[in-house]
Amino acid sequence: MKKHNFSAGPAILPAPVFQQAAEAVLDYNGIGLSLLEMSHRSGEFVAIMEEAQQSAKDLLGLGDDFDVLFLSGGASSQFFMTAMNLLDENASAGYVDTGTWSKKAIKEAQKFGSLNLLASSADKNYSYIPKGYEIPDNMRYVHITSNNTVAGSQFHNLPDTKVPFVADMSSDIFSRKIDPSRYDIIYAGAQKNLGPAGTTLVIVRKDIAKAQRDIPTMLDYSTHIAKKSAFNTPPVYPIYVCMLTMRWLKEQGGVDAISRHNEDKARLLYDEIDNNPLFRGVVAKEDRSLMNVTFVLENEELQGAFLEACAAANINGIKGHRSVGGFRASIYNAMTKDSVQVLVDVMQDFTKLHG
Amino acid sequence: MKKHNFSAGPAILPAPVFQQAAEAVLDYNGIGLSLLEMSHRSGEFVAIMEEAQQSAKDLLGLGDDFDVLFLSGGASSQFFMTAMNLLDENASAGYVDTGTWSKKAIKEAQKFGSLNLLASSADKNYSYIPKGYEIPDNMRYVHITSNNTVAGSQFHNLPDTKVPFVADMSSDIFSRKIDPSRYDIIYAGAQKNLGPAGTTLVIVRKDIAKAQRDIPTMLDYSTHIAKKSAFNTPPVYPIYVCMLTMRWLKEQGGVDAISRHNEDKARLLYDEIDNNPLFRGVVAKEDRSLMNVTFVLENEELQGAFLEACAAANINGIKGHRSVGGFRASIYNAMTKDSVQVLVDVMQDFTKLHG
Repeated sequence: MKKHNFSAGPAILPAPVFQQAAEAVLDYNGIGLSLLEMSHRSGEFVAIMEEAQQSAKDLLGLGDDFDVLFLSGGASSQFFMTAMNLLDENASAGYVDTGTWSKKAIKEAQKFGSLNLLASSADKNYSYIPKGYEIPDNMRYVHITSNNTVAGSQFHNLPDTKVPFVADMSSDIFSRKIDPSRYDIIYAGAQKNLGPAGTTLVIVRKDIAKAQRDIPTMLDYSTHIAKKSAFNTPPVYPIYVCMLTMRWLKEQGGVDAISRHNEDKARLLYDEIDNNPLFRGVVAKEDRSLMNVTFVLENEELQGAFLEACAAANINGIKGHRSVGGFRASIYNAMTKDSVQVLVDVMQDFTKLHG
Repeated sequence: MKKHNFSAGPAILPAPVFQQAAEAVLDYNGIGLSLLEMSHRSGEFVAIMEEAQQSAKDLLGLGDDFDVLFLSGGASSQFFMTAMNLLDENASAGYVDTGTWSKKAIKEAQKFGSLNLLASSADKNYSYIPKGYEIPDNMRYVHITSNNTVAGSQFHNLPDTKVPFVADMSSDIFSRKIDPSRYDIIYAGAQKNLGPAGTTLVIVRKDIAKAQRDIPTMLDYSTHIAKKSAFNTPPVYPIYVCMLTMRWLKEQGGVDAISRHNEDKARLLYDEIDNNPLFRGVVAKEDRSLMNVTFVLENEELQGAFLEACAAANINGIKGHRSVGGFRASIYNAMTKDSVQVLVDVMQDFTKLHG
């Protein structure tokens, strides 16, 4: 019996994607080879890569001024690669610190240029998105983490600036419409809305001003742009599953349709949190994430009992990150409203018993 | 109908591995989740990672003086990471240039220390392994590509030196016995003998002297050693398939048994090349690879006809690399002797027709 998977990442993917992904391991499109043993230079895989790149463009409404790369190394590698490729000793960049992953991005980027910490919500355990800070016009870029997987907060508006953004969208890519004209680089580890662990989507504006620095070939965006993400053997299977997931998303009506679905699911769960006397949300209402819903029990002693009730209802991955405690329900694109309803039902039944 | 897959990489894996790998995509061990949606912090994946690391140690006879890492970024990332972690401005390393991949390793490493090109077989299009060169004792390490996938050559003996080796074993790892005491670092892209594309095995001696250099966290071996290859989300599925492949190899009797099998297969094919008047091997006999068998037709005009004969016999991936031409039969661990016999039969039938 299939679990209701609220895991923060690697995370739920659409059921038909699992089916096709399993078939490709046995025999890819009936050609007598597993996708796992096929050359990355084969016509079949080149077509997979091209569809994946085109789908990312279609879903985000990107023009030909952007290149779409499927790399490896996770968002954690982009923390330094973005700065390594864009900054030098004379350039500075603005960073907004909104949680665990922002902090890591700042730590890695500061090796390559001077950083300006524009704002931070560390003072309240990252329970809000800072607003109203000034952004100097001479910044090379402003880095944001658009959705904070650990804290459960999300930028619902971009800060007002003419400086281009570099954004870690690992946990909300393809969940809502964005304005591509505001970004120089968008990156996202695959293992939330995009696919399984093992590849990283990196979207790079073609005309970005590159830093004058001697960069190892594998860490230089221009290498991967020139070689269409196949300078060396790319992570074939993870990219294939990303391609299937994006194909599925297009069939659902794309980002516009899924964003309405995501708002719907989030409303269902946040309404329960707000109306149920036993539970409380941990993030400022206007900054709540539509992807990662964080909440706590008013009475912490009931925590074990609630986790047991979830497990009994076949709910997986609901325990909060150790730095926040409580609970986190990750309700990415592939999560159904029915599964969210199962969680809401468990919360209501729990309140009848313990309220 | 399953093809005979002689592809150089991504490459053939054992049939039972494909079966188990497909099942895990639908439901991992019956727990109600696909492996693709499971947290890398779950007990299930931690057990997969531990088995993979232990199996690599068991298969190579490594003691506790080594750490086994499963990273991403391919061998191409190890070209600079090895040097970045081991060299500095004052240290020099010896490199032996035996082909395409050695050359790339040299290009990337020289950004981080002074390199000494000990020997090269570029003069004869990499058709042999250089011998008889001197290795200064003060080298930090000597880098070799143990098997040259493109040229089809292989080190059958290590150069005589007390300097430790750093070896790219991408295309012959787990194919034969090695002496771990001679190495400081062994690395291998997974997509030949080890698993599918998407992860890189890196074996690091625990007490290696680290360079004094400010290294991005993701590029520092000590990060991944401390976090047991899970500092960030590792490529879960590729690592799982590697683990299955190593489990299969242990069931076959390990490296000792497979090396006899590999010698057997290579002899069958090289004997045909040597005895068949239409074909000729391109590598010096004593340096021939047991993994990648490169050969040409004496009459190049027959090339298209031979490729057609191979295709008709359901043989895949036999075309040589563009830099060498001719043909390349990659006969990694999972290749059966029966499939090699099919190729030999095609060569013999072809000779009856065109000889």
